Amino acid sequence: MSILLNNNGYDNQSWYQALTTALPEQTLYIYPETDNLDEVAHEIEYAVIWNHPPGDLQRYPNLKGILLLGAGTEHIDADKEVPNVPIVRLIDPEVIKDMGLYVLYWVMDQHRLYDTYRTQQQQATWCRHNICQPAAFNITILGLGAVGKAVANCLNVNGFSVTGWDAYPQQLDDIRCFNSTDQLPTALEQADVLVNCLPLNDSTQHFINNDLINQLPAGAMLINISRGDIVNDEALLSALDNGQLSRAVLDTFKIEPLPQSSCYWQHPKVTVTPHMSGATYARSAVKLIADNIRRIENGEQPFPMHQHPKTDSLR
Amino acid sequence: MSILLNNNGYDNQSWYQALTTALPEQTLYIYPETDNLDEVAHEIEYAVIWNHPPGDLQRYPNLKGILLLGAGTEHIDADKEVPNVPIVRLIDPEVIKDMGLYVLYWVMDQHRLYDTYRTQQQQATWCRHNICQPAAFNITILGLGAVGKAVANCLNVNGFSVTGWDAYPQQLDDIRCFNSTDQLPTALEQADVLVNCLPLNDSTQHFINNDLINQLPAGAMLINISRGDIVNDEALLSALDNGQLSRAVLDTFKIEPLPQSSCYWQHPKVTVTPHMSGATYARSAVKLIADNIRRIENGEQPFPMHQHPKTDSLR
Repeated sequence: MSILLNNNGYDNQSWYQALTTALPEQTLYIYPETDNLDEVAHEIEYAVIWNHPPGDLQRYPNLKGILLLGAGTEHIDADKEVPNVPIVRLIDPEVIKDMGLYVLYWVMDQHRLYDTYRTQQQQATWCRHNICQPAAFNITILGLGAVGKAVANCLNVNGFSVTGWDAYPQQLDDIRCFNSTDQLPTALEQADVLVNCLPLNDSTQHFINNDLINQLPAGAMLINISRGDIVNDEALLSALDNGQLSRAVLDTFKIEPLPQSSCYWQHPKVTVTPHMSGATYARSAVKLIADNIRRIENGEQPFPMHQHPKTDSLR
Repeated sequence: MSILLNNNGYDNQSWYQALTTALPEQTLYIYPETDNLDEVAHEIEYAVIWNHPPGDLQRYPNLKGILLLGAGTEHIDADKEVPNVPIVRLIDPEVIKDMGLYVLYWVMDQHRLYDTYRTQQQQATWCRHNICQPAAFNITILGLGAVGKAVANCLNVNGFSVTGWDAYPQQLDDIRCFNSTDQLPTALEQADVLVNCLPLNDSTQHFINNDLINQLPAGAMLINISRGDIVNDEALLSALDNGQLSRAVLDTFKIEPLPQSSCYWQHPKVTVTPHMSGATYARSAVKLIADNIRRIENGEQPFPMHQHPKTDSLR
């Protein structure tokens, strides 16, 4: 009984140790480092993966489960030859809390004018600025999945005014929720900050475009903690140039690592962080993965299960 | 029936308007702008003041109450000729929440290494750093009055590990509390961040000195949102130089505005903010002040009352 591990080379050592400790009965093969993968392919029963090469999973005839190392499913969805076994997302409460705190930090950075105070310090200027109450500072969250809900609750519990929007109806305590394209303009019209928590799929590609940005109040701020492909980069840059957006905090990009040539790095109105808003850590994630492997071994349902979009047509 | 208003010239216009709206039956005299203060001194029944000149309050023979425009009492305590009328502090829940969020922002700034990420962006460097869980990041709060309690609760609700210390026993849900000098070393020994919320009085002057700083783990961070006089500046600068402290975030100073000549402005390990962690705003404070004036008029007790330290010997 063996596991294939592919975390794209990120922190392999921690993952190897943590998985070995959590599942001592399993042999662990790291992809693609393992030399004799073809020879041991029949041993492999579980694939613990992130951004795995399309088609490769067909090599393992005895696969029983695919355990993703993140909440997003766009990589596995793009693989047209996925074996017909359970696909399990990684929704780690610790990671989701981190994402809520990431958004809270940048919302406070904007609300309390900390950039202005940093500049004033450089100039040895002592000057206080009036600000509105947190309850009058409006944040709109696009996407109310596990991440969007956690972000909304984190901002709400700290006193900010939160509005949520999702393609489908959602309900959250103390938070105004809107759904469908019809209600999108209402969700956007008062947003001081727009936070993107949408999943990437065919209907969300370039969802944040000129048209959407122009429905925000002038001078709003964008925070993207989901996927770079959801934002139309040209629309964002043009809105920053003409003042429709005052600022963008981007944790995710079409290509990661963000290429050296990207104009985002040096843009005065853009903050770049290296997809660290909710980094997956072996220490907490491995327990969730090990529990799900045990569930499959015991004939129970792992969770949260993911429905591959091509299930009907291709399997 | 008249009120004397002295907010040291800060935002006088807002205060004048808000007080006039809240208490339309009162005449308002602004100190020191009012030319004929001596002529109208007998009319003045309430002094709404901050950092008022010692001795001046004796000029108003019909004074019924002193309403401070902040939570601190060091200015009024230093006045040896205060009339024997109720002294009321301003404890505005909105301001206290702002102070909690201020501390939370700088705690997150330290915990999530945002300064490092800002530098990395300037260098177009994409590199993630491992961090501990918020629950393993220890913040010690010195002083568990209204402000210290609010700060402790704000950090706790957001998942950080909080320890409180006060000269006197205090109890807070979910928070380890220590008291007295005996227990101070225990409160300090694991602090990644030390937050000063102590009131300024004879026993807290230079409370944060070499000896105290050396009881912290090497590389700790100091946040001061209380009063500059509680920190021994030489001890702080020396600890920043030798690495015992990695960083200081200072919102308050011995002399305010912080003089241009202060080395804090340009110190690479010091963040200076202009006493804005919990700015008093007319919009919320005036209601509390008006309610307390009405209580005194109705023969009720205003709150929170302050006991002047010289009450016994001088009144």
